[in-house]
Amino acid sequence: MLVFIGLGLHDEKDITLRGLEEARSCDVLFAEFYTGLLAGTNLKKIESLMGTEVKLLSRGDVEERGDALLMYAKERKVGLLVAGDPLISTTHVHLRLRAKELGIETRVVHNASIFSAAPSISGLQNYKFGRSATIAIPEKGFFPETPYEVVKENKKRSLHTLLFLDIKAEKGKYMTANQGMQIMLEIEKKRKEKVFTEKTLCVVLGNVGSDDCVLKAGKVKDLVGQDFGALPHSLIVPGKLHFIEEEYLTAFGGLKAVSSTRSEGTNA
Amino acid sequence: MLVFIGLGLHDEKDITLRGLEEARSCDVLFAEFYTGLLAGTNLKKIESLMGTEVKLLSRGDVEERGDALLMYAKERKVGLLVAGDPLISTTHVHLRLRAKELGIETRVVHNASIFSAAPSISGLQNYKFGRSATIAIPEKGFFPETPYEVVKENKKRSLHTLLFLDIKAEKGKYMTANQGMQIMLEIEKKRKEKVFTEKTLCVVLGNVGSDDCVLKAGKVKDLVGQDFGALPHSLIVPGKLHFIEEEYLTAFGGLKAVSSTRSEGTNA
Repeated sequence: MLVFIGLGLHDEKDITLRGLEEARSCDVLFAEFYTGLLAGTNLKKIESLMGTEVKLLSRGDVEERGDALLMYAKERKVGLLVAGDPLISTTHVHLRLRAKELGIETRVVHNASIFSAAPSISGLQNYKFGRSATIAIPEKGFFPETPYEVVKENKKRSLHTLLFLDIKAEKGKYMTANQGMQIMLEIEKKRKEKVFTEKTLCVVLGNVGSDDCVLKAGKVKDLVGQDFGALPHSLIVPGKLHFIEEEYLTAFGGLKAVSSTRSEGTNA
Repeated sequence: MLVFIGLGLHDEKDITLRGLEEARSCDVLFAEFYTGLLAGTNLKKIESLMGTEVKLLSRGDVEERGDALLMYAKERKVGLLVAGDPLISTTHVHLRLRAKELGIETRVVHNASIFSAAPSISGLQNYKFGRSATIAIPEKGFFPETPYEVVKENKKRSLHTLLFLDIKAEKGKYMTANQGMQIMLEIEKKRKEKVFTEKTLCVVLGNVGSDDCVLKAGKVKDLVGQDFGALPHSLIVPGKLHFIEEEYLTAFGGLKAVSSTRSEGTNA
């Protein structure tokens, strides 16, 4: 049996009692941190909580050599520890599907994901979020404009956009909110459609789930030079704000000059 | 201080270690279950886990008499236990805002929400979900067509739609997936835009987070008469399916006649 166990947002204390019980009953424990970053902990602390060794897997171990991993689960109870919710990432959907093909039973222990925690902690209403997108780390010949398209489409319908920031854990690259905004401004320079300008209202989230969670709302020009502290970061580009959303971002995110940002946010 | 503590999806074991630690350090513990249903547990079991009394709050206690609740938090550490993630519901956003106005410090302990667990367990890619909507329990003179509009809008963009099913906990009313589909078919009868017909591909989720989690995918006509077991239920109306999503729904959701449902799903 293979149990996908979500570790939640920040550190080893974010596992659920169900997750801990499942993990401790496993014969073998693996973990991977290339799809998400648990900034407040490390393998040693997780092993100490589990009371046993946890084998760290690379992207290749999961995506190319997944069958070797699944062979362990043929005869034994194997746990795979994953940041956030364990099936949000397509990689694990693939792995669960392959397990089924090989006749291996699976189980899923959910946990908090940035996909729900970001709307939640931002005070923005979850049913007003349109589709989300990832801002990719640009590489030579690879500079996707998808997040720009998605924000444009959502803004037309007054919807909020959650933008995930790319992770290349193998290379130790985790995008900051500042880099994310700069990339969006670069795309704006090419597209010139006033979808994401220096005047655009933006919400920055940092280290969600920790006691030092950062929430900052303001115009891009006022945010882009700020230090948002520890990673991981996320970005939200709000659509039309309800007055309670405005009040919340003012109270908890330091939003200023609300009405001017609102009209810009709506028209852009 | 007021600590919003998410209880997660199903029973008392879905609290995180962080949540349990916070709850046990509180001077007073409250809980409300009118914004979400924790089907696998009850107040007694939660009190037994916390080692102290937990006072159950009604909608009126939170929404009309919130200040009385906040008065407790002026001098003491108060915990509010909530199903799912504790700030997904607008009610708690209001309460956190009011706490700030009264100079009361707040803290948030995230947890799994159906908002992320439903996309996750369905194997559908999270960035392909458009905005979500709630199917409301119709009342005399109140039959909102919003979920129909939202599905229509998302389908045009090939996006999936997560449909929450209404809860009226005060009246003991929890909508089943069957009722949800019937309401959508009623709206279709009025609107006749072929957005949600008997041939529409639908995904039903039941009791997510429990060991008896139900995942069923198929045409509405094949699903509407089925028994999906224990509540709570949710619905997803998929947009265009990627072949991995199809494979997953076939393997875990009993999806049949994939290509025919796919083309219907795309055209409708």
